[in-house]
Amino acid sequence: MKHQAPIPVRVETSHLPEFVKEFDLIARLKATLPTHDSVLAGAGDDCAVLDLGVPHHLVLFKTDAVVEGIHFTSDAPPEKVGHKALARCLSDIAAMAGTPTHAVVTLALPTQFDTARIEAIYAGMNVLARQHGVAIVGGETTTNPERLLLSIALLGIVPRSRQVLRSGAKAGDAIFVTGTLGGSLAGRHLDFEPRLAEARWLAERFTIHAMIDLSDGLAGDLRHILDASGVGADLHGSAIPISRTAKLQAREESSAKPPLLAALTDGEDFELLFTVASRTAVPLLDAWKAQFPDVKLSCVGKITAAPGLRLRDERGLREFNLRGYEHFAS
Amino acid sequence: MKHQAPIPVRVETSHLPEFVKEFDLIARLKATLPTHDSVLAGAGDDCAVLDLGVPHHLVLFKTDAVVEGIHFTSDAPPEKVGHKALARCLSDIAAMAGTPTHAVVTLALPTQFDTARIEAIYAGMNVLARQHGVAIVGGETTTNPERLLLSIALLGIVPRSRQVLRSGAKAGDAIFVTGTLGGSLAGRHLDFEPRLAEARWLAERFTIHAMIDLSDGLAGDLRHILDASGVGADLHGSAIPISRTAKLQAREESSAKPPLLAALTDGEDFELLFTVASRTAVPLLDAWKAQFPDVKLSCVGKITAAPGLRLRDERGLREFNLRGYEHFAS
Repeated sequence: MKHQAPIPVRVETSHLPEFVKEFDLIARLKATLPTHDSVLAGAGDDCAVLDLGVPHHLVLFKTDAVVEGIHFTSDAPPEKVGHKALARCLSDIAAMAGTPTHAVVTLALPTQFDTARIEAIYAGMNVLARQHGVAIVGGETTTNPERLLLSIALLGIVPRSRQVLRSGAKAGDAIFVTGTLGGSLAGRHLDFEPRLAEARWLAERFTIHAMIDLSDGLAGDLRHILDASGVGADLHGSAIPISRTAKLQAREESSAKPPLLAALTDGEDFELLFTVASRTAVPLLDAWKAQFPDVKLSCVGKITAAPGLRLRDERGLREFNLRGYEHFAS
Repeated sequence: MKHQAPIPVRVETSHLPEFVKEFDLIARLKATLPTHDSVLAGAGDDCAVLDLGVPHHLVLFKTDAVVEGIHFTSDAPPEKVGHKALARCLSDIAAMAGTPTHAVVTLALPTQFDTARIEAIYAGMNVLARQHGVAIVGGETTTNPERLLLSIALLGIVPRSRQVLRSGAKAGDAIFVTGTLGGSLAGRHLDFEPRLAEARWLAERFTIHAMIDLSDGLAGDLRHILDASGVGADLHGSAIPISRTAKLQAREESSAKPPLLAALTDGEDFELLFTVASRTAVPLLDAWKAQFPDVKLSCVGKITAAPGLRLRDERGLREFNLRGYEHFAS
């Protein structure tokens, strides 16, 4: 399998200073944002959770953007670009165990654009929207001279008290991840299916303590749960489900990451990462296999009271630093 | 008054082919969008109007973007850029007589960015949000290498049956416009106050048949009402409120538009344009003057059963073509 030209994803180390600047900036900006009583969860979770007075339901609200040359190459099939743009938002609704309902789309077009390409982008988006009962209720077209940018805002609903935040992980919890991880940029990032049905099924049948969708990679997104919950985690390297693509890349490309590192840090997997009480782990795994026989579910570690993220491999349990490739490999 | 370097707004005639292409494209795209029963108004009005089951209220949903070099120059004061980005969305909620509630922000940052500038943009946005009780509940930061782009999605509410669409104009209606028009790009486009209170007051006290906020210019936006309502209009040139800026520009700059044409076509005024039954016109004007003594309200013409847009000036009543500068001036 030939993978696409490298896409400058946000965690690329060559952009480290800007990347760190951006994270610091976001933290500072978040602290200044106006809020009010109706906001049960604001900036900092997968979606905002709002109480708009809908009986029995809370409203979820999310925005996300894809940019040409950043999230997709200019020769990516346009239907897949539209699919990805919406699927990313749907994945965030899934991470709250919600059901998506309505979307608006901002389409920023380069100075020269091919109408057939734009129509194909919408076709890809529309197919996925119909599949999940999402109405596309408006949009805005504007100009972004150098490259196409698609920003989508999505509404969803979740039964009251069934929303799953990032902040509920407890020491002793088992950590689960769906699917297989790593190597998504070789293709899967353009046509993944958001885990909406799986997430709702989980939240209906089990008490899910914390959940997130994997966009930054298992290690990065687990850190979001740990930070929000004030806990730490031990991961079992041998339990982490590595994608065939990541294994193949490691074998065939001298510059590829070791497969386990790819699974931990590649990003754009859009799988679900969640934690449950340890006593729930076995019944959950059994029920999952019966319900979703084609979707792998792996218990990859446990939540600890001690902060930090540790990885157990053949050399023992060691601190794992998301941006520590050299450190990890040495 | 020195006005800013010309900004390539979307109606610039040098971009006519792309512009027309974009309009055709939008019409085709709209026809393909998935919808469902909860959507009372979708793509094509100022906001989508959704029935989410909130007792007594409908939910409004809108997205809008501003792009560096298109909607603001790179030397524009950053607080004003943040103000404008949110104010444009608020103006669309105003056009439905709604109350804004929650926003999410997509911030696409150029490869090199100045964190102080971004914080100042947010500061401008936050001040305006607080002023109108809007919670900023999330956002996404991404990369747009060449220029800054801010996309905002906004939720609002409106009492059931009080939402004002573009489609309700009736033959015989009086056409009103708030404020004064033209020359906004000289500065007002960056610091206008969205007419939220005025719009709610109008909808609470009078039966407003159709309303829109002026972003494309009086002639362009009136056409949106006429198209949606299946009617035409006669405008009275002498009744159209021309801004001091547009008059000044016409006097001082040889390349400036005649002031009436500026008022009709400049765009970015963000005033309210609405129609009411003719018998309502006088009591409405009287009540307005008592309520908003500092905001001009002008009756600029009437809705006709005959389609098309006509302008009455010293040479009589003639068809007015939005993109017909030469035709109009000849």
